[in-house]
Amino acid sequence: MSEQDKTRQMKLGLMLAQSGHHVASWLHPEAWPDTELDFSKLLHLAKTAEEGLFDFIFSADSLSGEKFTPETLPRTAIGVRIEPMTLLTALAAVTENIGLVCTATTTYDQPYLVARRFASLDYVSGGRAGWNVVTSAHPPEARNFGGGVHPNKETRYRRAREFVEVVNGLWDSFDQDALTLDRAHAQYYDPAKLHVLNHEGEFFRVRGPLMIPKSPQGRPIVVQAGASEDGRQLAAETAEVVFTAQQSLEDAQIFYRDVKRRAREAGRDPGSVLIMPGFGVLVRETQAEAEDVFQQLQDLINPDVGISLLSRYMQTDMSKYDIDGPVPELPSGGDVFSRAGLLLAAARRDGLTIRQLYQKIAGGRGHFQLIGSPRHVADVMESWFHNEAADGFNLVPPLFPTGVDEIVKRLVPELQRRGLFRTAYEGKTLREKLGLPTPIPQRV
Amino acid sequence: MSEQDKTRQMKLGLMLAQSGHHVASWLHPEAWPDTELDFSKLLHLAKTAEEGLFDFIFSADSLSGEKFTPETLPRTAIGVRIEPMTLLTALAAVTENIGLVCTATTTYDQPYLVARRFASLDYVSGGRAGWNVVTSAHPPEARNFGGGVHPNKETRYRRAREFVEVVNGLWDSFDQDALTLDRAHAQYYDPAKLHVLNHEGEFFRVRGPLMIPKSPQGRPIVVQAGASEDGRQLAAETAEVVFTAQQSLEDAQIFYRDVKRRAREAGRDPGSVLIMPGFGVLVRETQAEAEDVFQQLQDLINPDVGISLLSRYMQTDMSKYDIDGPVPELPSGGDVFSRAGLLLAAARRDGLTIRQLYQKIAGGRGHFQLIGSPRHVADVMESWFHNEAADGFNLVPPLFPTGVDEIVKRLVPELQRRGLFRTAYEGKTLREKLGLPTPIPQRV
Repeated sequence: MSEQDKTRQMKLGLMLAQSGHHVASWLHPEAWPDTELDFSKLLHLAKTAEEGLFDFIFSADSLSGEKFTPETLPRTAIGVRIEPMTLLTALAAVTENIGLVCTATTTYDQPYLVARRFASLDYVSGGRAGWNVVTSAHPPEARNFGGGVHPNKETRYRRAREFVEVVNGLWDSFDQDALTLDRAHAQYYDPAKLHVLNHEGEFFRVRGPLMIPKSPQGRPIVVQAGASEDGRQLAAETAEVVFTAQQSLEDAQIFYRDVKRRAREAGRDPGSVLIMPGFGVLVRETQAEAEDVFQQLQDLINPDVGISLLSRYMQTDMSKYDIDGPVPELPSGGDVFSRAGLLLAAARRDGLTIRQLYQKIAGGRGHFQLIGSPRHVADVMESWFHNEAADGFNLVPPLFPTGVDEIVKRLVPELQRRGLFRTAYEGKTLREKLGLPTPIPQRV
Repeated sequence: MSEQDKTRQMKLGLMLAQSGHHVASWLHPEAWPDTELDFSKLLHLAKTAEEGLFDFIFSADSLSGEKFTPETLPRTAIGVRIEPMTLLTALAAVTENIGLVCTATTTYDQPYLVARRFASLDYVSGGRAGWNVVTSAHPPEARNFGGGVHPNKETRYRRAREFVEVVNGLWDSFDQDALTLDRAHAQYYDPAKLHVLNHEGEFFRVRGPLMIPKSPQGRPIVVQAGASEDGRQLAAETAEVVFTAQQSLEDAQIFYRDVKRRAREAGRDPGSVLIMPGFGVLVRETQAEAEDVFQQLQDLINPDVGISLLSRYMQTDMSKYDIDGPVPELPSGGDVFSRAGLLLAAARRDGLTIRQLYQKIAGGRGHFQLIGSPRHVADVMESWFHNEAADGFNLVPPLFPTGVDEIVKRLVPELQRRGLFRTAYEGKTLREKLGLPTPIPQRV
């Protein structure tokens, strides 16, 4: 371990989601069943994460509620939410330090509108905005935007790359020192320091400029979560934070090294691309207590919901099989659902029933589940952090609010004792907290 | 005056804009030159309006900064702003009572996204959201959205009408009592009370549903500002608050009666359509003091900016004429600039020079200027309010922050003394403050 490694500290994000990331979280007695619609409850989560010195809170998004069948969706809180940008913007005004990262799709939104909103969030938050760049992987979204054919993955990624390029260009409309506010000469800004983008590409023609002077971070932080070949490459070229969902240290190392290598090949400093796997952390004072709470959640899964969840992962209707029988032969894979093959292999190896298999994915909807005492959880995080698997973690706790309360009360102090996590915020902006350089505008 | 009329009270909105609505406001020593980029200063304005028991603050918008020539734009703060929805959403978290109305265009946005954002703002604000429906009247906006031809007015209004219909439909996705949060039966909502929109129209195909249960107001308030034939008709059919810009009591009465009649003919209660003219109020302790401050602002207009402003109104390059010479013969009118003809007539009548003419429009960019003592200003407002010209006023003060401070300190108490304005908020939601009924979903 080099000298630098000894002082290196992990970054932490908290992903918001209903009453927790477990599919049955809203049914648990510790949960608030209507978290996703109650601003004061969401504020509690954000404030708690801020007390815990988290780098950011994060909200995913979907432009359609149809992730389950119409029969099972009403049994979950899934899909119901305050629009993430609205939520995080409101939270910006009543938090001081925590970063605010949220999703906006490149598939059904417009770069001018996205650039404008995130630059504006950067202003109202004093430099705490981050944009999670996604392509809409969920075909029903098309039905809310004209009803045409959902573009294929390759097209979506090509559009995403151009979209990010336009947004970055718009964010660079004003030079850092363009505002003069010179009343004596009636000069609000120096016109030589305002740049017209004049972008003309395959998907977008955007003239610009964006009439928002340089925001506090220079540019909001760009986040991505692509796991596929296209996703990794886009992330390596353009992202500053990368979310991942590997299930093992070995897989995470392969991903980590691959993205860092791609970043280097794209001419970037690999240190300016932070890899943050999603961890479904459930921590309690003791291992047994943590496991007990998790089992309570597993037992609360409505079987219709479990089957529906599994059917979606497998892209196959699983309701026709015996819920307590063995997992049948299935075609695995397909477009974005590349985790299906891994799941099937695990089911075979461990001889799981269908019920056991849906329980396996219900906790964090595909993220690595890490359940136990502060010591156990910190051990695993430390191991990933010190072995080229992670620069930090995006926590997706199965249960809110207690799951977050316990993390801040028990896990954060354990990480701090080990020197793995900050004991005070390093700066006001999210960029300063993450230790990321301010991007330099590329003018053509 | 009927019994009802005696207890009827006016509604008040405050329109935000840079350091004030006067084109030279940012140059005035009382102004903060960077109001539009500083959240704490914008918060001061919102809080002051809330202390003054205003119904709402309001932010207009434009998706392009090119309202002036590239040479004169840098001399103004115009076009530079935090995106209005972002601003008002952040303000929602740090205000308690005041309504939050902002603009979203039907020309370059998507109904699914707009419906979602305003329903979400309604949640985070506890029922204080209002949507100012506009069609983008400014052709350069097209250049930031594909660069195609800006649609003509008739097409924009047809699209706007369908857009509002889709948004209302999406807002009605859930019945009021759809949420059950029934843990015992794992039923989050009653599926019979969720409605799929399945809209297919000329401009939009939107399936829905919007996965946001009924927001606190049932629906956010719908606001419009169309003055043209198309605009009035759309407002009469769909708006709950109508902004106008009449320059005289007589013109305002004609507009007021026309919109109320159209509303009645469209099967609506005319009382559920509130007409609120924009008033450029500048109030000080004495008439002389108010007029003196206004003259200071007039004298601060940079001539390039004044000429540019006038050229835009007249849709003619005015820089080729002597600034202190008479206003020449000009073609008046054209698409949205129907105020040009009125202005020209005024210039003829009063023998104005070009400088005097641009000064005439610089104060509130087309709104009626009302400058003077609290008594004088209240007299005019009372007269409009009691004579079928206004249900309230959307104030567009030439100068911030002092302009707002003085209104709350001097004008509001004067209106209250006359029984014309509330002395305490009537309810939590904007709909309650405005006394508007909750729209009943129309299911087909």
